[in-house]
Amino acid sequence: MDAAAHAYFFGGAGREQTLAANEHAWCKDWLWPRVLATPARIDTSVTLLGRRCPTPWLAAPMAHLRLAHPQAELGLALASAAQGAGFVLSTHATVALEDVAAACRSETERGPLWFQLYPYGEREDWLRLAQRAARAGFEAIVLTVDAPVQQVPTRAREAGFTLPPAWPQPNLPAPPPRGTLEELLAQALHWDDVAWLRQRCPLPLILKGILHPADAERACAQSLCDALIVSNHGGRVLDGVPPTATALPAVSAAVRGRVPILVDSGLRYPTDVVQARALGAHAVLIGRPLLVALASGGAAAVAQLWRRWRDELAATLALLGAASLDDLPPLHTELQPMPAPNP
Amino acid sequence: MDAAAHAYFFGGAGREQTLAANEHAWCKDWLWPRVLATPARIDTSVTLLGRRCPTPWLAAPMAHLRLAHPQAELGLALASAAQGAGFVLSTHATVALEDVAAACRSETERGPLWFQLYPYGEREDWLRLAQRAARAGFEAIVLTVDAPVQQVPTRAREAGFTLPPAWPQPNLPAPPPRGTLEELLAQALHWDDVAWLRQRCPLPLILKGILHPADAERACAQSLCDALIVSNHGGRVLDGVPPTATALPAVSAAVRGRVPILVDSGLRYPTDVVQARALGAHAVLIGRPLLVALASGGAAAVAQLWRRWRDELAATLALLGAASLDDLPPLHTELQPMPAPNP
Amino acid sequence: MDAAAHAYFFGGAGREQTLAANEHAWCKDWLWPRVLATPARIDTSVTLLGRRCPTPWLAAPMAHLRLAHPQAELGLALASAAQGAGFVLSTHATVALEDVAAACRSETERGPLWFQLYPYGEREDWLRLAQRAARAGFEAIVLTVDAPVQQVPTRAREAGFTLPPAWPQPNLPAPPPRGTLEELLAQALHWDDVAWLRQRCPLPLILKGILHPADAERACAQSLCDALIVSNHGGRVLDGVPPTATALPAVSAAVRGRVPILVDSGLRYPTDVVQARALGAHAVLIGRPLLVALASGGAAAVAQLWRRWRDELAATLALLGAASLDDLPPLHTELQPMPAPNP
Amino acid sequence: MDAAAHAYFFGGAGREQTLAANEHAWCKDWLWPRVLATPARIDTSVTLLGRRCPTPWLAAPMAHLRLAHPQAELGLALASAAQGAGFVLSTHATVALEDVAAACRSETERGPLWFQLYPYGEREDWLRLAQRAARAGFEAIVLTVDAPVQQVPTRAREAGFTLPPAWPQPNLPAPPPRGTLEELLAQALHWDDVAWLRQRCPLPLILKGILHPADAERACAQSLCDALIVSNHGGRVLDGVPPTATALPAVSAAVRGRVPILVDSGLRYPTDVVQARALGAHAVLIGRPLLVALASGGAAAVAQLWRRWRDELAATLALLGAASLDDLPPLHTELQPMPAPNP
Repeated sequence: MDAAAHAYFFGGAGREQTLAANEHAWCKDWLWPRVLATPARIDTSVTLLGRRCPTPWLAAPMAHLRLAHPQAELGLALASAAQGAGFVLSTHATVALEDVAAACRSETERGPLWFQLYPYGEREDWLRLAQRAARAGFEAIVLTVDAPVQQVPTRAREAGFTLPPAWPQPNLPAPPPRGTLEELLAQALHWDDVAWLRQRCPLPLILKGILHPADAERACAQSLCDALIVSNHGGRVLDGVPPTATALPAVSAAVRGRVPILVDSGLRYPTDVVQARALGAHAVLIGRPLLVALASGGAAAVAQLWRRWRDELAATLALLGAASLDDLPPLHTELQPMPAPNP
Repeated sequence: MDAAAHAYFFGGAGREQTLAANEHAWCKDWLWPRVLATPARIDTSVTLLGRRCPTPWLAAPMAHLRLAHPQAELGLALASAAQGAGFVLSTHATVALEDVAAACRSETERGPLWFQLYPYGEREDWLRLAQRAARAGFEAIVLTVDAPVQQVPTRAREAGFTLPPAWPQPNLPAPPPRGTLEELLAQALHWDDVAWLRQRCPLPLILKGILHPADAERACAQSLCDALIVSNHGGRVLDGVPPTATALPAVSAAVRGRVPILVDSGLRYPTDVVQARALGAHAVLIGRPLLVALASGGAAAVAQLWRRWRDELAATLALLGAASLDDLPPLHTELQPMPAPNP
Repeated sequence: MDAAAHAYFFGGAGREQTLAANEHAWCKDWLWPRVLATPARIDTSVTLLGRRCPTPWLAAPMAHLRLAHPQAELGLALASAAQGAGFVLSTHATVALEDVAAACRSETERGPLWFQLYPYGEREDWLRLAQRAARAGFEAIVLTVDAPVQQVPTRAREAGFTLPPAWPQPNLPAPPPRGTLEELLAQALHWDDVAWLRQRCPLPLILKGILHPADAERACAQSLCDALIVSNHGGRVLDGVPPTATALPAVSAAVRGRVPILVDSGLRYPTDVVQARALGAHAVLIGRPLLVALASGGAAAVAQLWRRWRDELAATLALLGAASLDDLPPLHTELQPMPAPNP
Repeated sequence: MDAAAHAYFFGGAGREQTLAANEHAWCKDWLWPRVLATPARIDTSVTLLGRRCPTPWLAAPMAHLRLAHPQAELGLALASAAQGAGFVLSTHATVALEDVAAACRSETERGPLWFQLYPYGEREDWLRLAQRAARAGFEAIVLTVDAPVQQVPTRAREAGFTLPPAWPQPNLPAPPPRGTLEELLAQALHWDDVAWLRQRCPLPLILKGILHPADAERACAQSLCDALIVSNHGGRVLDGVPPTATALPAVSAAVRGRVPILVDSGLRYPTDVVQARALGAHAVLIGRPLLVALASGGAAAVAQLWRRWRDELAATLALLGAASLDDLPPLHTELQPMPAPNP
């Protein structure tokens, strides 16, 4: 991976304050282990959208993975399926969605296979792409709602990042919008667009990019989604927004169990997944750690990472005296809270 | 720019505690974005002294810009005017104020053009310079009140910074005072001097360098200014003074809307401007980021920076669901405050 | 010591947050010295399990010390005995326990000699090893309860750490378990195992690795130990668990004096021992500082470190106006607490 | 200055936590400047022990200055006297006290000349040395009470610091004690020693090294001193003790104006002196900044530093709207306190 691509994948917006806070915010409460009470069996599975998932995580949708490794999205999808992890294919993937779905089909213990949708073009374009994903075997549509304007991370801009010529993007619903900021804003998705798509979409609809509890409340009150993902886009869209670990409890309180909640941004270790669970998330999306693995060793390295995460999550649960994620005790904040990390 | 000039421009007083705190203090509250509610049009303009300004920022008065780039103040003024930003010319500019005003005149969408005044010499000298600025087309006088004694930043002193010989300073009201500290202090500006100038000045009078709310109260109660600028001189005059983000709400409470408030020192990203607005500022002055741009690429780089700032401010407003700065919601501190940054 | 061995000894689990917090957490309260009241004599001894110990510390059980220095556990034990420090021999030592005990026997001022037991194999295997230790002259069995699953520190894994072939481990009760995580968890120690061993063990039984006060309460209520050691295994087993300085007061409150409490993890200076005492520990175990000394100069360097620690502890007590650890005043938190260190 | 001498002068005890905290703790409250109210004249003088001092500072007693520069204590004393600063000569000076006093005598605007006494030998030895200092023209005896056991800083020990052979120490009351820690402790100074010396000493007696308010109370209640110095010996004696800025308000409250209070340790800028004044100190002692100057340029560099400090203190007072240190407003903590610096 060259320096500009690295800056593109690992950078964030503005002074990268949210990027940094995302990681630190997961260290919210100390985990108080229990001794001499190891459960005989540990179950790392969760249930999402009516289906058992062997692990509580999915690979987050990431664009342009071919910049990281020639196996690109195909390698990441296969390794995830083989290790019981879910996978979310990006609209900006460099591999056709049909090829990804076909490759994963034979893995019987695989996690969910979802398709992430950027609403380029007209409403009918989005619907056609969702139908195409459904036909291929995808199980849900993840509609990204937090990026009406997409920006390149500060450091990627300074590094002069651009996509190579003739870059393959076989899953676009329509060409991405171009033009002035005013023109881009005029095409931004609105609540009525979501309602329109929700009525017609052949798959469950998941909204990705909610931070404000009032938005979560609206999505639930109007039955506009089957699940939602608390995300700040990995700190890439707007700097200064709260880390997702900060927003998650507020969103969870607003949702009141009406839909399952997922979360991403800043999760780097299986212990972070335990923290996310304690704050209200049913499952998590993992991004940059997979990028590191993919870039360093392709699908094999990704599979090794997922396998280690599963073992480490099981070990963590065992050390906390919990047989499953549902069995986790509340984190013992009352014993002594951790000092708040500085931004 | 040589190392000594760099130390002069980017250094601060003492141990540079205020210099560092200035930047961190703008990260005061998390910005909570809203989704699916992008306004159709974004307006970045503000109204200052009865005039519409396309953007809420002005280039702060900075001395000796020729050290950074041969285009000096002329380049910075032109690029600012072209991009709808205001410009404040320093008494210590290396270009005659008439030349600056003439160059900006043709830009129809330009921001305010103000002249910053150091009160060297006698009262009549100040008045003559203000009249000269008025004749040239400047729209206000910015009287600096926080630097009765000027010091070179610690690191510039250690780097042996001095001005080159025969340095052009065509806008001085009189030669800068020289002598012992006692002699300098004896010439310091007082409240009665401001009152004298205010009565005679042909232009609106703006006081720059207020931190203490009692001073803001006095300036308003005695109608001594048309606007005031909360500033600690970029941390250059006295170390250990509060960052302006800390002083701003206290000043705003004291002013109670009687005059518009501007603020400078430490603003580095358009998101900081949103924070400043939320804390009570109507507009901001930007200094060192422009210096970096000017030094690296002259007027063209400054224009590019201003253009990006305008787009990023518009995008930020859009992501917060606000059509203009007046439309900003209160920052959602109650959802969860950021931990206080350390000095 | 090669880089992989260094990573093995000095690394921690996960992002090493607990590893780092362990050290910082001992700087809990300022020590307020008293003047002109130096006691005539300073006594650094403590009483543990009915026996006087010249110093309040023991060398913590550490595995594979031959990687650090050819004198290995024998050198560390001898130097500790010579300087009045206790010594805990690891199950994973590279020297036979009989040889260690024989070497230390002649030191009349030595501290306690304990044997640390990993419960590999069957219950009878553990008991046989405890009996063997008793016959050799060990004074207590330290049963490690916090590591049903052992992990290599993150950085050691990345450095490719493995044990050399034919590595001597003459004190294992049985071969360490191998297999899948599920198989390892199935062999984990439980409370009834401890009760079984406690009834038959010819030596006092000490539980090592308690953090949660409820576990301490259970161990005391059921009389399952003669002492307990608050430990997070030096941050090596599970990242995100509280530093021992945080857990210690909670455990101390739960134990209510029923058994003596020891603590390890992160103690680096004799002043930390004073802090540990003030938080409820009767004695401490020291690990990594001894490793540094052993690796740099073998037994001689260890003896020099212990000697300096004893002098510095005596000097610290003198400066605090205390003639012994029992004579320490409460730390004067009320005068002004230290700000909480960040994780 | 070689590396070992540098480590000796600039190091601290233990992990150097107090050494670091000393500096940060002076940044306690923001200084809120006032504008347009510059006093016509600034007076930096203070009154100490019935005598006017042109500046509120003295050079702290420092041992072995010949290691820093051949002019040693003589250079530091002369430069201080010439710039209106006080000077405290160390018992461990490398120049005879008579020579120092003679050299300073002609400076009419000099600050106080004090002699620091380490109580080596017998009571009569101390008294003889105090009488000798009085005869030479010293104005007070500074009795160090915080170092019954002297330790070399951690990093100096590691650097192998030792004094050169035949090192001149012409002011010792008796040879420094040698022997085991127990023997050193047996010779420690006690309250009755202070009372004995106080009754006979021909000069005012100042106690240096008080941190605990109870010790300050005892010294005042029994009239055992004419002034006291809040000090932690620059963080060199015991790590983990509070920074002097933390102890100072507690001591000030205990003293209730009965004797003047001085403070040292960690003051690095004239603004720190303003903070010290606001926390209850009448004057300060400056150490390491003078060492840097002496080592870099002898007496000339020291004089330049003192001159700049005097100008910067005057400028600071002017910017705060105060004509003298007595005229300082309370620091406006209520406006907004600074966040507590981390240790």
